[in-house]
Amino acid sequence: MRDCILAVDIGGTKVLAGILSRDGRILVSRKEPVCAIGCPEEVLKQIFRMFQQMMNTIGINSQNILGTGVGVPGPLDYVRGVVENSPNLRWLSYPIRDELSKRLGTKLLLDKDTNVAALGEKKYGMSRNCSHFIYITISTGIGGGIVADGKILHGQIGGASELGHMLVAPGGRRCACGRVGCLEAHASGTALSLDAKELIARGKGQNILTFCARGQAPTAYELGLAARQGDAEAIALINRAADYAAIGVANLVNIFNPERIVIGGGVGIGLQDFMLPRIREYVFANVFPLHKRNLAIEATQLGEDIVLLGCASMVLHDQLEE
Amino acid sequence: MRDCILAVDIGGTKVLAGILSRDGRILVSRKEPVCAIGCPEEVLKQIFRMFQQMMNTIGINSQNILGTGVGVPGPLDYVRGVVENSPNLRWLSYPIRDELSKRLGTKLLLDKDTNVAALGEKKYGMSRNCSHFIYITISTGIGGGIVADGKILHGQIGGASELGHMLVAPGGRRCACGRVGCLEAHASGTALSLDAKELIARGKGQNILTFCARGQAPTAYELGLAARQGDAEAIALINRAADYAAIGVANLVNIFNPERIVIGGGVGIGLQDFMLPRIREYVFANVFPLHKRNLAIEATQLGEDIVLLGCASMVLHDQLEE
Repeated sequence: MRDCILAVDIGGTKVLAGILSRDGRILVSRKEPVCAIGCPEEVLKQIFRMFQQMMNTIGINSQNILGTGVGVPGPLDYVRGVVENSPNLRWLSYPIRDELSKRLGTKLLLDKDTNVAALGEKKYGMSRNCSHFIYITISTGIGGGIVADGKILHGQIGGASELGHMLVAPGGRRCACGRVGCLEAHASGTALSLDAKELIARGKGQNILTFCARGQAPTAYELGLAARQGDAEAIALINRAADYAAIGVANLVNIFNPERIVIGGGVGIGLQDFMLPRIREYVFANVFPLHKRNLAIEATQLGEDIVLLGCASMVLHDQLEE
Repeated sequence: MRDCILAVDIGGTKVLAGILSRDGRILVSRKEPVCAIGCPEEVLKQIFRMFQQMMNTIGINSQNILGTGVGVPGPLDYVRGVVENSPNLRWLSYPIRDELSKRLGTKLLLDKDTNVAALGEKKYGMSRNCSHFIYITISTGIGGGIVADGKILHGQIGGASELGHMLVAPGGRRCACGRVGCLEAHASGTALSLDAKELIARGKGQNILTFCARGQAPTAYELGLAARQGDAEAIALINRAADYAAIGVANLVNIFNPERIVIGGGVGIGLQDFMLPRIREYVFANVFPLHKRNLAIEATQLGEDIVLLGCASMVLHDQLEE
């Protein structure tokens, strides 16, 4: 019986793959570093091998597979299933949908990882039955998945929801995208690391260094540790990042009038105790009364498996539509 | 035969009403100042009278009416058809859809004026057959209508596309909405008037005053006149407003990946010779390659009748769906 779903979350540094049941349980999963940055063919071989091993582990074969769901970093040409010039993967116009589908011999559903995460949140998270919400991942970068009228917003090619590239700080830091003052350049994990580095370069933040391994620079994680011990400098950096995130969230609430804003990603989840209250306070003070009504701002409960769960959702809903 | 459509664009200061044919021709239209600010019942009587007069003028009666389309300023509870606390109309939770429908005795389609304008642009403008575009009106205020996957984006209650309330200038001017640094506070007609006033209060901008009637302060219109005569101060103010608008447009392109950005509104259309090239230049330099593909940034060709045309579109499409 075809009752298993292959799911893979391809990231800039890691491949997270799993096999899920029809009811969204993760039967088995594996995480490996990406075997060869810049070589999509090698990564596809790696994924194929990971799936083979897991299928052996749980004793299923290709007859049991309903379909495959895949999340990849943007920019993705969703219409053609082609990863464009990806700064994280260092792939250039690679037709991953066709190539991986051919290799696996299953039907394959593909979307940008942040969109897939939003689908996971919609099917298995606290945003079940929610038709209007925005998933924002705060991690190395900042991205999103927008659910409007119950469906993922893709835009004409699939580039929609590049939420990290709203301007929040004119004249601020130059972003990896080339623009100056993007949300991602001021509120991502990368931005927090840079903030800490700049602080320490000015001879400050010495207490924060005590939370780091010798010779290591602080990341968002160590800033969180220091902040929870009351370190005022760490708290100030996190608060500032949260305030930039809050500007972006308020913009989005005014643009989308959603029911929920759902924060995910390592930094968004890891620092939610600091960030969420500040984001909520700013947003509820800075959007229209109509837009505050029935608005919740929360962190996702789904953790690291959110993209795998979204992969299952894509495959299951595709089945429903047939 | 039911082949005429009643259309009305209710603004903060004027009521524009018309009767259109099924093919979108405006058979007759009238514009009047709003008879009583803050009194919805009086305005509804005025609209009823305007329609009666126009029906007499072209010799039709209620048997000829297919339906009525209405555009109102936001915030609008689209689900219930209720104008919320509108700063322009000074109406408070007024159930306009039910009340006006009762009075006119026709089926009535209602939406926020900027959404209706986007529908007009989609059916009768250059954005025909376009499934992903954003209409931005730059006028007294700044608002928008977003077409995603061929449909107006409403959000959960109808508050979506408050595009004037994206933050573009942290620490900037306080907006009528209460937030500091909104697009509307820096790039609207109101903002340009304030910019001019502040310039003149500093003893500058004396040449701009020569374009104004005696004792009148410059508005966007006079700034445009002065700028077209080469006045450097007027050009600088318009350019600055355009640069703020460009920030907002680039954000929206990254968020929606649209095919078209369509600028409308008195200021947007009137100053397009200055504003459009600057907006285009910034946007094409500041969004992702994927997002630039097949992207056009234009002014609408539909002028002041855009909302009436959108009203016709609402009524006609409602008929199609029945």
